[in-house]
Amino acid sequence: MEAGGFVSITQDAYDIINESIEAVLPDEAIRRALGDNPPPEGTRVIAIGKAAWRMASAAYEVMGSRITRGLIITKYGHAGRAIPGMKVMESGHPIPDVCSVAAADRALELVRGLTARETVLLLISGGGSALFEKPLPGVTLGDMREATDALLRGGADIREINAVRKHLSAVKGGRFALACEPARVRTIALSDVLGDAPDVIASGPGYPDESTCEQARAVLDRFGVCLSEEARAALEYETPKALDNATVEVIGSVAHLCEAAARAARRLGYNPLILSTTLDAQAREAGAMLAAIAREIRMRGRPIPPPCAIIAGGETVVNVRGGGKGGRNQELALAAAIGIDGLAGTVIFSVGSDGTDGPTDAAGGIVDGGFAARCRATNRLGGSIADHLNDNDSYPLLRDMGGLIITGPTGTNVNDLSCVLVR
Amino acid sequence: MEAGGFVSITQDAYDIINESIEAVLPDEAIRRALGDNPPPEGTRVIAIGKAAWRMASAAYEVMGSRITRGLIITKYGHAGRAIPGMKVMESGHPIPDVCSVAAADRALELVRGLTARETVLLLISGGGSALFEKPLPGVTLGDMREATDALLRGGADIREINAVRKHLSAVKGGRFALACEPARVRTIALSDVLGDAPDVIASGPGYPDESTCEQARAVLDRFGVCLSEEARAALEYETPKALDNATVEVIGSVAHLCEAAARAARRLGYNPLILSTTLDAQAREAGAMLAAIAREIRMRGRPIPPPCAIIAGGETVVNVRGGGKGGRNQELALAAAIGIDGLAGTVIFSVGSDGTDGPTDAAGGIVDGGFAARCRATNRLGGSIADHLNDNDSYPLLRDMGGLIITGPTGTNVNDLSCVLVR
Repeated sequence: MEAGGFVSITQDAYDIINESIEAVLPDEAIRRALGDNPPPEGTRVIAIGKAAWRMASAAYEVMGSRITRGLIITKYGHAGRAIPGMKVMESGHPIPDVCSVAAADRALELVRGLTARETVLLLISGGGSALFEKPLPGVTLGDMREATDALLRGGADIREINAVRKHLSAVKGGRFALACEPARVRTIALSDVLGDAPDVIASGPGYPDESTCEQARAVLDRFGVCLSEEARAALEYETPKALDNATVEVIGSVAHLCEAAARAARRLGYNPLILSTTLDAQAREAGAMLAAIAREIRMRGRPIPPPCAIIAGGETVVNVRGGGKGGRNQELALAAAIGIDGLAGTVIFSVGSDGTDGPTDAAGGIVDGGFAARCRATNRLGGSIADHLNDNDSYPLLRDMGGLIITGPTGTNVNDLSCVLVR
Repeated sequence: MEAGGFVSITQDAYDIINESIEAVLPDEAIRRALGDNPPPEGTRVIAIGKAAWRMASAAYEVMGSRITRGLIITKYGHAGRAIPGMKVMESGHPIPDVCSVAAADRALELVRGLTARETVLLLISGGGSALFEKPLPGVTLGDMREATDALLRGGADIREINAVRKHLSAVKGGRFALACEPARVRTIALSDVLGDAPDVIASGPGYPDESTCEQARAVLDRFGVCLSEEARAALEYETPKALDNATVEVIGSVAHLCEAAARAARRLGYNPLILSTTLDAQAREAGAMLAAIAREIRMRGRPIPPPCAIIAGGETVVNVRGGGKGGRNQELALAAAIGIDGLAGTVIFSVGSDGTDGPTDAAGGIVDGGFAARCRATNRLGGSIADHLNDNDSYPLLRDMGGLIITGPTGTNVNDLSCVLVR
């Protein structure tokens, strides 16, 4: 493979990344949603999640002075410049902290005493579950965290964990919308959850909860999780099963991200093929499988002949066993480097649309068929790629070998894009 | 989903399994290879591997009395009826035993003292590495096994392990062909290895070895593996780097299996899409990923619209952590059942073309979108599907829920076929 070829296919990859993230920035979708159906004068805006600032900013551009008061609740370092009438509060992610509670208190204050003619515009994005939280009276953040940790250790699935968490919270599972009554609550959401279920995005503060107190108690019993007496008592209060005052619109999701990537790939001359938008396998194994597809394209011109782009969206999983630094997208890309070792004209990348992959400043990773050989020749960190993966230490190796994708916080959050480019 | 629908799509799955395995039985391919280029009178036939009996039987049908003497070396229970002039020896797999050595001794005896005008027809299939083995003088089977185990524990890759094993063996890495000199050695192989490398299939008894003594010693040093003095001394003898008397033809592989599955699927009305023929991810995660593709087909009609068949071939991996019973194909299918839970008109299966998946009497597993619900309702074994997977215990649950694929030894061995059917 000639050097010029690699630079160019990598440039194509970056173009696809930029164009697809650009396409899922909330601005245009919010303009469309609010333009089609403008909220009334005096609307209060509450934006929650990693994309909160950008969503609020887009809403302000459309609505201007029709917004009476606004509140932006986002992750530390994720806010942009000041927006007139909007207060910004930053809080903890992925684990809620005291600022998450302060933010929820402030939001509840903002919606107190509204009338049926007033509207709360809830702009929701991923990360909201942690950034915006308030335990029920008698329950502490520590209670919630301990219950979550114990359920995770016991192998409970996310539905079971959410049934418990929603019943311990004063704002999750539709309870925030309940607190807004009789005012209307209009939720506009960017989905970062597979399947785009509105009760799961940011734990559904504006959407009815299907789970019951009885189910929550049964989950705790099944996994042998003990709660304080006060917290257990909280599980007697039911979440709302219907909300007459609330509506939800999902304006962006990983499907949009994948479709934008497919359009960008096609424009650059690659035949696109979207495999899935609900990828949920282990990151490392997803990387191995995308590499296996890359090999097939190179060897036998299928599933589709090159030049082509195989696209998958979703949220892969990392079971952290090592002590290293990395994220699921970086781990996927680094694992793929093993599988495409020596393959000409082949690039694989994986990137989080929010711009932050795991607890790192990178958005993801990108490798080509020469990456593994370059590691063997020039890696000063020692150890094989597999060693680094075993230690969940993808970041340093990708950094040293020029395989990190750095975007900074992007202003959106619709999960991850993984892609094989072959030409 | 109506019951009739499920019966029928499952029937389609079984038709695809039967037709694709039928297509990679060695008979027809051996008839073609030997018909195009008939071996001379007096040819000795040595068939080694899980498909040895069937390959030898096909050769006998073509050559009849042109075979002077023959030897079939296969796995316990894998031999068929007697073939005139051919002796059958059964031995250990996946770990070589004393019968593996006895078989290699017998084979070496059979080729001793041949002239340059004589031909040895070597019929090779997967499993041959273990079934046919003879350590160099001074080396024991125990030495070989200890070195292999220590390298596996240390994280050596298969190339590194093979470099050591070939240099400890008197028959691997082309040394069997060397022992046949000056006679011609014609190898006809069914490939069960990804990429069909003839030096890897059955460890290449009839093919030159690229690895060197120096590399073998370096691998042992890198992973800190100690050998007995005698075994270490054996690493001074180089394997053949070229063999003027030997040729290799690969007549069947997982690519043929996948292509036959695609033809069968198309005949039954499903659009086929072959994703890869070198699948090497963890079985459980490959199942999750195929399920993610099934969901995308059901929800959004892509990567191709239903009715369709997504086909992948290869050899997935199971890192055994639990104490249960199962195999990689069963584990893939059972994991997929979680991911297609509730999906109508969807079946996922995975099957080993040799008919034996792991240490079980099943060839693989098959599940549909209703499997998980039926498990929750009627599974008498207790535990969730995830619990069974965590214990590597796929067999009992699939057995109880009607999800085992049973074929018995098939007579071929070209690795595994995994398939998603949606209609």
